[in-house]
Amino acid sequence: MSSPRSFFWVQEYFTPWDYTARAVTRILAYRKTPFQEMLIAETGAFGKGLMLDGHWQSTTVDEFLYHEALVHPAMVQVVQAGGIPRRVLVLGGAEGATLREVLRWRSVEQVVMVDIDGEVVAACREHLPEMHQGSFEDPRVEVVIADALDFLQETGPIWDVILSDLSDPIESGPAYRLFTQEFFRQIRSKLQPDGAFTIQAGPTGPVELHQHTRIVRTLKTVFAAVQPYAIYAPTYGGPLGFALAAQDPISPRPEPEQIDQILSQQLDPERGALQFIDGITLLGLYQVPAHLRRAIAAETVVYTLDNPPRIE
Amino acid sequence: MSSPRSFFWVQEYFTPWDYTARAVTRILAYRKTPFQEMLIAETGAFGKGLMLDGHWQSTTVDEFLYHEALVHPAMVQVVQAGGIPRRVLVLGGAEGATLREVLRWRSVEQVVMVDIDGEVVAACREHLPEMHQGSFEDPRVEVVIADALDFLQETGPIWDVILSDLSDPIESGPAYRLFTQEFFRQIRSKLQPDGAFTIQAGPTGPVELHQHTRIVRTLKTVFAAVQPYAIYAPTYGGPLGFALAAQDPISPRPEPEQIDQILSQQLDPERGALQFIDGITLLGLYQVPAHLRRAIAAETVVYTLDNPPRIE
Amino acid sequence: MSSPRSFFWVQEYFTPWDYTARAVTRILAYRKTPFQEMLIAETGAFGKGLMLDGHWQSTTVDEFLYHEALVHPAMVQVVQAGGIPRRVLVLGGAEGATLREVLRWRSVEQVVMVDIDGEVVAACREHLPEMHQGSFEDPRVEVVIADALDFLQETGPIWDVILSDLSDPIESGPAYRLFTQEFFRQIRSKLQPDGAFTIQAGPTGPVELHQHTRIVRTLKTVFAAVQPYAIYAPTYGGPLGFALAAQDPISPRPEPEQIDQILSQQLDPERGALQFIDGITLLGLYQVPAHLRRAIAAETVVYTLDNPPRIE
Amino acid sequence: MSSPRSFFWVQEYFTPWDYTARAVTRILAYRKTPFQEMLIAETGAFGKGLMLDGHWQSTTVDEFLYHEALVHPAMVQVVQAGGIPRRVLVLGGAEGATLREVLRWRSVEQVVMVDIDGEVVAACREHLPEMHQGSFEDPRVEVVIADALDFLQETGPIWDVILSDLSDPIESGPAYRLFTQEFFRQIRSKLQPDGAFTIQAGPTGPVELHQHTRIVRTLKTVFAAVQPYAIYAPTYGGPLGFALAAQDPISPRPEPEQIDQILSQQLDPERGALQFIDGITLLGLYQVPAHLRRAIAAETVVYTLDNPPRIE
Repeated sequence: MSSPRSFFWVQEYFTPWDYTARAVTRILAYRKTPFQEMLIAETGAFGKGLMLDGHWQSTTVDEFLYHEALVHPAMVQVVQAGGIPRRVLVLGGAEGATLREVLRWRSVEQVVMVDIDGEVVAACREHLPEMHQGSFEDPRVEVVIADALDFLQETGPIWDVILSDLSDPIESGPAYRLFTQEFFRQIRSKLQPDGAFTIQAGPTGPVELHQHTRIVRTLKTVFAAVQPYAIYAPTYGGPLGFALAAQDPISPRPEPEQIDQILSQQLDPERGALQFIDGITLLGLYQVPAHLRRAIAAETVVYTLDNPPRIE
Repeated sequence: MSSPRSFFWVQEYFTPWDYTARAVTRILAYRKTPFQEMLIAETGAFGKGLMLDGHWQSTTVDEFLYHEALVHPAMVQVVQAGGIPRRVLVLGGAEGATLREVLRWRSVEQVVMVDIDGEVVAACREHLPEMHQGSFEDPRVEVVIADALDFLQETGPIWDVILSDLSDPIESGPAYRLFTQEFFRQIRSKLQPDGAFTIQAGPTGPVELHQHTRIVRTLKTVFAAVQPYAIYAPTYGGPLGFALAAQDPISPRPEPEQIDQILSQQLDPERGALQFIDGITLLGLYQVPAHLRRAIAAETVVYTLDNPPRIE
Repeated sequence: MSSPRSFFWVQEYFTPWDYTARAVTRILAYRKTPFQEMLIAETGAFGKGLMLDGHWQSTTVDEFLYHEALVHPAMVQVVQAGGIPRRVLVLGGAEGATLREVLRWRSVEQVVMVDIDGEVVAACREHLPEMHQGSFEDPRVEVVIADALDFLQETGPIWDVILSDLSDPIESGPAYRLFTQEFFRQIRSKLQPDGAFTIQAGPTGPVELHQHTRIVRTLKTVFAAVQPYAIYAPTYGGPLGFALAAQDPISPRPEPEQIDQILSQQLDPERGALQFIDGITLLGLYQVPAHLRRAIAAETVVYTLDNPPRIE
Repeated sequence: MSSPRSFFWVQEYFTPWDYTARAVTRILAYRKTPFQEMLIAETGAFGKGLMLDGHWQSTTVDEFLYHEALVHPAMVQVVQAGGIPRRVLVLGGAEGATLREVLRWRSVEQVVMVDIDGEVVAACREHLPEMHQGSFEDPRVEVVIADALDFLQETGPIWDVILSDLSDPIESGPAYRLFTQEFFRQIRSKLQPDGAFTIQAGPTGPVELHQHTRIVRTLKTVFAAVQPYAIYAPTYGGPLGFALAAQDPISPRPEPEQIDQILSQQLDPERGALQFIDGITLLGLYQVPAHLRRAIAAETVVYTLDNPPRIE
């Protein structure tokens, strides 16, 4: 067995003693913005990818896992709660792939994407058409370059779905405030009563699950219902968690056939079929494995502005 | 952020352009046996681990995911099919952790573990007590150092459960024959009518799922029922698949409460609680995500002795 | 001891089992040109560097070793042979640092730099001012973007010094022809009778010295005098060879005081002092260590167009 | 171009942002002793090597550069000073290769090697016969497992040559005391009047030469004559310095023919020819390049017990 002798390698540490190295075969864009260090590149086996501050955000090979998992559970939840997802707010989401998934829903009338880093958004728009697939041009979409905190303070309680598509809060920078009880309360106050909120919620592997369990625990102090789940996209080197939160109950064992019916009614068939999410997938996602369920139940730490995620 | 400057790193390639690097902080045993290159080591973050031919087999931090997933679904299946798991045959399984899980079942009267590499078994027995927890000393256990093919030819159709705990068939070496239709037929012929067979069945990540889909497809030509599933253990850098095969139907949506009852009746409480598997986990495991379900359905390649897994 | 967790690393293989990894802290320019893959970047410890096709060409921390060693021995040789270095031809040399060293000589009236890759020259001019120090603006300098072979065929026998500042011939591409007997004859025919030619001549470490010994051997079939020497700049991970060739004798034990006198007379003091080359350094450089001297003496391979450096 | 996918790699940092990675193809011995972490291994391209605490000490491919450079200049110096090297003390030197070089000298009657780590000495003796070539069995050799400091305090002023073959003092541990003024005074007091002392004296590359210049500076406060020099062995990833110290003058431009005569008279021809050192090599070695000469001259730091090499 042999490997091509690639010379650019990107190393992503997930513990101090473990990293994933990925060969970059062409650099498409690189920039140190006021907020972060950005790389968009072609990789040997994962297609094109976006890296921020040394962490892969997504690659074209498996981003469907991430983006479908981020978007559709919350949209389905609104329908199951008796609502209609019309207005969707995306926090972060520079690649435009979250937009792409939201725009599949025929009921959606307005999507606002708030990202702090206009340079990254512009670079993704130019270099990652496979991901956004023209979503930035959709008339329903508005991109706001701003701090999510500021935007949220100004906006009204009009949102059916809010999606937090942010980097992990483990780096220095303002994102850590977006994982606190105070912020989640803010989110709740801007949602419609039957609205839903989904947040990317950190790795769930046995060596590094505290951030996940704390985010879930914090959400539980704010929302009446919280459903954690996780995907395993090799881009991230380990399982990555999400949490869906709502004031209405979330069914822990959704009926696959019923979910499939919702999706079939609501999604625009011209935008192609979902690859990952369907009724069976959703039923599977919501069955949190025992060790993780136990760790979540045992968690006592609530992230607040006074006790935010530690910058590690 | 900084990392300790470890100097000994083990790199595991999962594509030619992607590898995981893991710091080894102490080498416990190293040997080139007639069959493979073995390393048992302490790692920085994953506890102790066993590596064979450059592939991590298990680490103490998350091996419970692997070994519980390998053993208990098949055992449960026998019970659900109306049988009692009394005799279990383990192919491979040097660490002794598969034995450990099997021995939790009070009904088990005999476990035979057939491993081709006595040097590796001896080294695991010496250096990985956290994994085997004394299982090699259990009077119900018999370890046979032999080729699984030879053993299987000699043995009778007495086995309630057969577990294939082998390395991936991607390397040169004899293991590739243990992933063919001919071998699976052999397995079937040695199982009791209500018996079950589980096999570690390769990665299921989007960039590398062909081996998995082909193993599942091949099993379907031999067994009446095949249930694929996957775990998310960071040790493997991506999701790892299994397949459970039987002649009796396998319920694709097991009732969690019923599974929990079976486990509670059958497992020896003195051996501690399971960490990963319970009814909810099992229900989740069996919900194969849509993209993988579709890839399995579309697979046409059947592994045979004439068309074995290619040595890549 | 700990290291910053840099995520962008450049690996340069010098054997299939050995590479140097260098952290890149900022990418300044990246391009795939028709000829090569170029990276100009800030590194953690080596300042700014230029990499072509996965090989570091120079870094600001130790490029003085390379560029002084390339330029001054040939210039000194011309003086010692009774000539005056007025016209200098540089083949390759994109960084402009070879120009910088040539321009120190007050006698120099004309320097022509012939580089095949205008994109790389332009990027170096923009991003590596520390290296060229404005040399491209010097009125004595002319940059020609062309194949060195073509240029040489057209030019007359007017050159006092010719400097081959090319990448190693180990990659695919046209450079391999510039290391053959035919090309060296071409060079000789374009030199003044008391002229001198210096060529970067490959690594001289014990594991990889064949290219060096063959270049030296080939030169000896063309020039009356050949003096090999080597520098040890950590940028290259091992010792890097040069060869000085002339028709006049080259003193193998130059008198340090005499060399210092030549340098003091000829160099423009306003351009600062040399860091590496002086009389003592030159005396040391020309004392080829015994194992290398023996390997050169034993070498029989002559590179010709029919038997060029193999592309490895 | 492609590389074999080796899975064990040893990384040696020479700055926090730069490391050399070397594939290990077979582990021969590994141990955490009370003093250090030891690895003896086969590498892909460098033969067998010894690594201590993450630093390569020597590999069979280029150790002749190191060991000949360590031993013969001091031996020659004694002869040039009118003495005869009869008694040699080696501090460190576990591989036995320093012994091997010393034993070439017919005048040598006694060699004592003092190494603190008996486990490492034993492992080298077993696994590195290519290096020691049976030197440990020579009746002139005595191995003492002890702290060099203790040994030196007890011994008399009987030594013609003392050779410090120790790891760099950059790690935690007792070795740092063996690079101080106090220790060098101790050394001087145990040498015969025409004796000589050579010490491995740290890297001399532009990014990391302070340790070297400080060791040289410190020696100059103790000995009447100090001659620094450096070798280019790729095993170390950069040039590695030595310093020869004596009370008699050291000729900075030794006459090659005279050196060759000494070597020819003194060395036992049955032990084979030197590969690296001869008159020309020695003349070259002693010509310290200008930038290094200047850095040494500018150095003001003297290592003392109160101001030892900093543990970095």
